[in-house]
Amino acid sequence: MNEKMKKLGSHRSAIRELFEYGKRRKAEIGAENVFDFSIGNPSVPAPEAVKNELIRLLESTDPVALHGYTSAQGDPGVRAAIAEYLNRTYGAGVDANLIYLTAGAAAALTCSLTALLNPGDEVVLPAPFFPEYRVFVERTGAKVVPVACDPATFQPDYAALEAAITAKTRVLLLNSPNNPTGAVIPEPGVQKIAQILSAKQKQFGAPIYLISDEPYRELVWGNAAVPYLTRYYDNTLVCYSFSKSLSLPGERIGYVLVSPKAENAGDVYAAVCGAGRALGFVCAPALFQFLVPKCLGLTADFSVYKKNRELLTTGLRKCGFTVVEPDGAFYLFVKSPEPDANAFAERAKQAELLLVPSDSFGCPGYVRVSYCVSTRQIERSLPAFEKLAKSYGL
Amino acid sequence: MNEKMKKLGSHRSAIRELFEYGKRRKAEIGAENVFDFSIGNPSVPAPEAVKNELIRLLESTDPVALHGYTSAQGDPGVRAAIAEYLNRTYGAGVDANLIYLTAGAAAALTCSLTALLNPGDEVVLPAPFFPEYRVFVERTGAKVVPVACDPATFQPDYAALEAAITAKTRVLLLNSPNNPTGAVIPEPGVQKIAQILSAKQKQFGAPIYLISDEPYRELVWGNAAVPYLTRYYDNTLVCYSFSKSLSLPGERIGYVLVSPKAENAGDVYAAVCGAGRALGFVCAPALFQFLVPKCLGLTADFSVYKKNRELLTTGLRKCGFTVVEPDGAFYLFVKSPEPDANAFAERAKQAELLLVPSDSFGCPGYVRVSYCVSTRQIERSLPAFEKLAKSYGL
Repeated sequence: MNEKMKKLGSHRSAIRELFEYGKRRKAEIGAENVFDFSIGNPSVPAPEAVKNELIRLLESTDPVALHGYTSAQGDPGVRAAIAEYLNRTYGAGVDANLIYLTAGAAAALTCSLTALLNPGDEVVLPAPFFPEYRVFVERTGAKVVPVACDPATFQPDYAALEAAITAKTRVLLLNSPNNPTGAVIPEPGVQKIAQILSAKQKQFGAPIYLISDEPYRELVWGNAAVPYLTRYYDNTLVCYSFSKSLSLPGERIGYVLVSPKAENAGDVYAAVCGAGRALGFVCAPALFQFLVPKCLGLTADFSVYKKNRELLTTGLRKCGFTVVEPDGAFYLFVKSPEPDANAFAERAKQAELLLVPSDSFGCPGYVRVSYCVSTRQIERSLPAFEKLAKSYGL
Repeated sequence: MNEKMKKLGSHRSAIRELFEYGKRRKAEIGAENVFDFSIGNPSVPAPEAVKNELIRLLESTDPVALHGYTSAQGDPGVRAAIAEYLNRTYGAGVDANLIYLTAGAAAALTCSLTALLNPGDEVVLPAPFFPEYRVFVERTGAKVVPVACDPATFQPDYAALEAAITAKTRVLLLNSPNNPTGAVIPEPGVQKIAQILSAKQKQFGAPIYLISDEPYRELVWGNAAVPYLTRYYDNTLVCYSFSKSLSLPGERIGYVLVSPKAENAGDVYAAVCGAGRALGFVCAPALFQFLVPKCLGLTADFSVYKKNRELLTTGLRKCGFTVVEPDGAFYLFVKSPEPDANAFAERAKQAELLLVPSDSFGCPGYVRVSYCVSTRQIERSLPAFEKLAKSYGL
């Protein structure tokens, strides 16, 4: 047996552990009495257009074509529609022949990392980061090099990033809007990163790839904008998922694209395809591939998240908690009032508040609050947060 | 970049290569003029019940629940339904808590192999075998040990199997009904394998797992029966897919189950879950998970395959080709009239017959003919086969 896999399966991620606890707890005391902020499972339904298009496809398409194998890279028409959308919307300059449809962003990431990495390579990761990144990177035999963000803003610490890049660095993995902080890297930050990477590539004489994991691209608040990274840096791969934008996280549909301007773009793309093959993906789920063209640019109704964000940010601050206001995604990263966030999360659990301690995000001393829940849950949870704050004398 | 992945992506499998050639060729001379026997893409539609149930689910279920993340192992109700079905139908003695839903059989295999194997381990594989097995095994760092079947029957050569098992053997991977030969291992053969493995486990003092890959379980002809392997050998994992039974290969829905009688079954299951996590699967596609309970025991209409099998077996024999009559699946494994099957497949291509040479199946000198096509294609192709045979003086 493979002991690493056994360990990964026996010790679930802190997020999943809490999510499963929440399910048990809800069965015990009623769903409405557990304030489950554990998981990024969208609470708003998929747009009506998703249902209508799925039914239209089922009723009007030859089932052999609809449910059959597509090419491993995905249906060519679907890939063309995605490229056209990205080029029209963001001036992304991408090519349908360098898009590979995947079973969601996780698959896009494992395929990209498996394509690019060899044992001993290093992946630089601004921290905090989504804990599964570590699992995905380490499975390839490569090493995670976390670089702490500026705690006042959760923007990358550019000097520290620069210092962390070595001759072994093959990948910088960015996630903006960020899980767990909600931070969005604005254009000057992206330009700074592109400069650093370009200089380091030159210095070490080897490509450094930027992987942009952006399942939260459309989830931005206020005036925040998410620059499209192929426009700033050539050696870029973009990993995307329709999980959050269309509220379809269980359906596993997304893609990875290699920038046509990347060094040896064709070879990198071939390696992504090879990785998909070796990991057992075969093709992205066919029905949901065919759904994509009609849903590009559509999103679920995010107004609930926007309202939740305001209610929760205001409410938690009023209680005395320290919160950096997030520009995107649907997470709040809250400073633990005691140094050990696990102890804090445990005390919160006693008040039926399920908050994920931040240790596995590579940034101890915080909890992640997923506010992709009902507004009613936010409202009903505020007294519990207040009591929790008082127990710390805030 | 990872050169192995680049190679896997640049050099497609012989099957996929021919499939893609077929698509181009059909565009050139018309689909009806290319006799494409390359791929196991079911030609019969999914049962009407699939469409009806999908539409019912879409129309009657809360989209947040229908399309949301399930537990990583899969929805508990779906897993319970599968266990109940297998126990009722086959006396399989399986447990819902040891079933892990996957994105098809390929994912079931990569999760199982990643769970069980460490670099240097050996996987014994009766040859011929589905070429992707080699890709899946070698990605874990383990080694494939092919053992040639009896060419008169394509049944395992039991003495050779026994001799191939060493202290390094962790897995015997069986595939019955077999791709590419269609052979089904009958009960006495299964009993023989169980005896061999039990003795070898004792001899080497370590578990040897039997992985049964059975996407063709329901595709059997005549009186052939497919024994359920958990009944014969304790250290068994079963990989299953609904791709062929329900004609849904593009949708990626299947499962792996660990026999409750396996040594450390809970740990093996945990390792499977850990592998699914590390490879980026998250959960099997949700809508198709929920489809499963209503479709257990259903199949697409296989009468076309049955008819094709008869027409093709008779037709090819009449031309002078050597064919072992298959008991299951939808493949015919035909002896090449010249030693080099690649040269034979090339000559066939000139007659617009797309046949997969068998080298990558670990058994040179044959071609695989996938007869999951329209009966009309079989009928129209027979003169081309006849001409081909004549060109060899058969």
